[in-house]
Amino acid sequence: MEKPAKRSRDTREVRDYIRTIVDFPKEGIIFRDVTTLFADARGFRMAVDQLLAPYAGEPINKVVGLEARGFILGGAVAHQLSVGFVPIRKKGKLPGAVLSQAYALEYGEAVVEIHDDALKPGDRVLIVDDLLATGGTAAAGISLCERLGAEVIGCAFVIDLPELGGRKLLEDLGHEVHALTAFDGA
Amino acid sequence: MEKPAKRSRDTREVRDYIRTIVDFPKEGIIFRDVTTLFADARGFRMAVDQLLAPYAGEPINKVVGLEARGFILGGAVAHQLSVGFVPIRKKGKLPGAVLSQAYALEYGEAVVEIHDDALKPGDRVLIVDDLLATGGTAAAGISLCERLGAEVIGCAFVIDLPELGGRKLLEDLGHEVHALTAFDGA
Repeated sequence: MEKPAKRSRDTREVRDYIRTIVDFPKEGIIFRDVTTLFADARGFRMAVDQLLAPYAGEPINKVVGLEARGFILGGAVAHQLSVGFVPIRKKGKLPGAVLSQAYALEYGEAVVEIHDDALKPGDRVLIVDDLLATGGTAAAGISLCERLGAEVIGCAFVIDLPELGGRKLLEDLGHEVHALTAFDGA
Repeated sequence: MEKPAKRSRDTREVRDYIRTIVDFPKEGIIFRDVTTLFADARGFRMAVDQLLAPYAGEPINKVVGLEARGFILGGAVAHQLSVGFVPIRKKGKLPGAVLSQAYALEYGEAVVEIHDDALKPGDRVLIVDDLLATGGTAAAGISLCERLGAEVIGCAFVIDLPELGGRKLLEDLGHEVHALTAFDGA
C-alpha cells in the first residue's frame, strides 16, 4: 500500500506575500505592494492577527485607519476587535465638521482630517496603516486623535522602512510602533 | 428591595446610524454619511452581517471593494468570510499592471482599475461599496472582474438611492443587487 502523499505545509510569512514593484510611482522608487498580501486569504488573516498580537488584552475601543490602504486593513482589524472604525482622510473628503492637521512632504505640505465628533476623551485608539515611511501621515493622525482627547494605544503597520525615519519620529513622540516586517531603503 | 433597573435594548437599525449632511460635496446635494455607522461597534458589525446575509452558503472566494469607503467595508467583509480582498482603485493608484475601465460621469468620464492578476477564471467575487447611486462605478467594477474571468456572485451596498438608477442598471446587466437601506432623492 502506498503511503499518502505528504501534504506540504504553507510556511510563507507576511513578508513573502508582499510584491516589489520598481519605479512606482516614479523612477527610482521601489514600491512595496501589499495588494498581493491582502488578496490572499491566508496572508490577509495572518496580517490582521499579527497586527493585533501585541495588543491582546488592551481595552482598545476604536480603530483609526489612514486613507486609503489603511482602510482595508483597518476595516478588518476593527471587525476582528468588534469595535468601531474611524477614517482619517485627505483634505476635503469627509462630509462633516472636521479637525485638520498639516504635515510636511518632501516638497510642500499635505493635510489630513478627522470628523470632529469621531473620537472623544476616554477613547482608546489603535492607528493602522500598511506602510510606515517618513511617519508624517501617522504623526498627523496621532495628533488628530489626541486633539479630540483620545489616547493612542499603538500604531501598527504591515511594513516599516526604517531608513526613512518614521519609526524614530513616532518613538520620539512617545509612541510605540509595531510593524510586521521591514525593508531596507526607500 | 428595589428591582434592578430595566436595561433597555438597543433597537437601532443600520439606517439609524447613517448621518445626513446637506450641501456636501456641493450645494443642493444631500450626502448620506456612513462614517457614523462604521464608527459604532454595534452598527459596523450589523452592517457587515447584513451585507453577507443573502450569500450564506455561497462559495465566495474574493471580496472586491471600490475605493475608498468600499475598502473599509470590504476589508471587514473579507475578514468575516476568511477570504482575500481585492481593491478597485481610481486611475494611477495601483502599482502593478492593470486593466482599466472608463465610465461616464455627469460631465466627462472617470476610469477605475484592477491589477490584471488580482482575479482569475473560477474566482467567485462579491463586490461591496457603501453607496449605490448611478451605478457607474459598480458597473465598471463588475466589468473589470468579468474581464479577468471571475464570476460576480453579487453586489452589496449599505445604501441604495433608487431614483439615481443604479439598481436598475445593474439588474439590467443581469446582476443581483443587495442593499441594506434606501433613501429617496439624490
